[in-house]
Amino acid sequence: MQTADDCVFCRLISGQLEASLVYEDRRTVALMDIQPVTSGHMLVMPRSHSSSLADLDADDGAQIFRVAQLAAAALRHSGLRCQGVNLLLADGAAAGQEVFHVHVHVFPRFEGDGFGLRLPADSEIRPRAELDATASALREAWPAR
Amino acid sequence: MQTADDCVFCRLISGQLEASLVYEDRRTVALMDIQPVTSGHMLVMPRSHSSSLADLDADDGAQIFRVAQLAAAALRHSGLRCQGVNLLLADGAAAGQEVFHVHVHVFPRFEGDGFGLRLPADSEIRPRAELDATASALREAWPAR
Repeated sequence: MQTADDCVFCRLISGQLEASLVYEDRRTVALMDIQPVTSGHMLVMPRSHSSSLADLDADDGAQIFRVAQLAAAALRHSGLRCQGVNLLLADGAAAGQEVFHVHVHVFPRFEGDGFGLRLPADSEIRPRAELDATASALREAWPAR
Repeated sequence: MQTADDCVFCRLISGQLEASLVYEDRRTVALMDIQPVTSGHMLVMPRSHSSSLADLDADDGAQIFRVAQLAAAALRHSGLRCQGVNLLLADGAAAGQEVFHVHVHVFPRFEGDGFGLRLPADSEIRPRAELDATASALREAWPAR
């Protein structure tokens, strides 16, 4: 188990900082976000410190999704306002990552909740040839198994 | 393998509709979003039709995350503009789901890409007592294993 002394999430997991824990298993924990987008907003993260997807153990990642799926079910059965659920992960500062310990946000959505996405102006339907060229570049860059 | 005749993603997976495929395995496929947030935007989805997280096979979910992690690595090594990566899943219309076949968006981010989140006005740091009460409600609603 890797930990990082200067990581606020490692300190939440170890109990050095106060956390509101919802779920834990051998690989992962789910706890409340201190600044929720909507009430019920949880963070699902690996116990072992990984700063980014590039150094995340793949089995930890798989378990994070399993737990996020359970968290979504809990939200829907909790009595909290929840007509839908978003899962969101930010990898890198340019993607909005603020704490460099991998985590998935799981938060309930309801009509009029005030949350939304701002899309780039050029977010338009693209010609098939352009999509095929991009797909080809990504197939070439796909990690070897 | 479940399929739904009226599901556009099932039709992409089966080849009835044209798709730009990046990756496939026994459980999942990754293909280009026809209307990318940023160039390189992929959708990772299960082959088997599941309309929502509630009916998604947990092993399919785990594999979706594994593939999304590989997709993020491919984006970072592809030469496409990519300083960061977001993973986003919308479960339910209230969460922004538009096609009712579970999928994770994986898209590159870079400074000035024009993508952003609009947060609710009351997205503020909450008192520990409130977070603990919400955590307690979610623990009670957590699905039995």
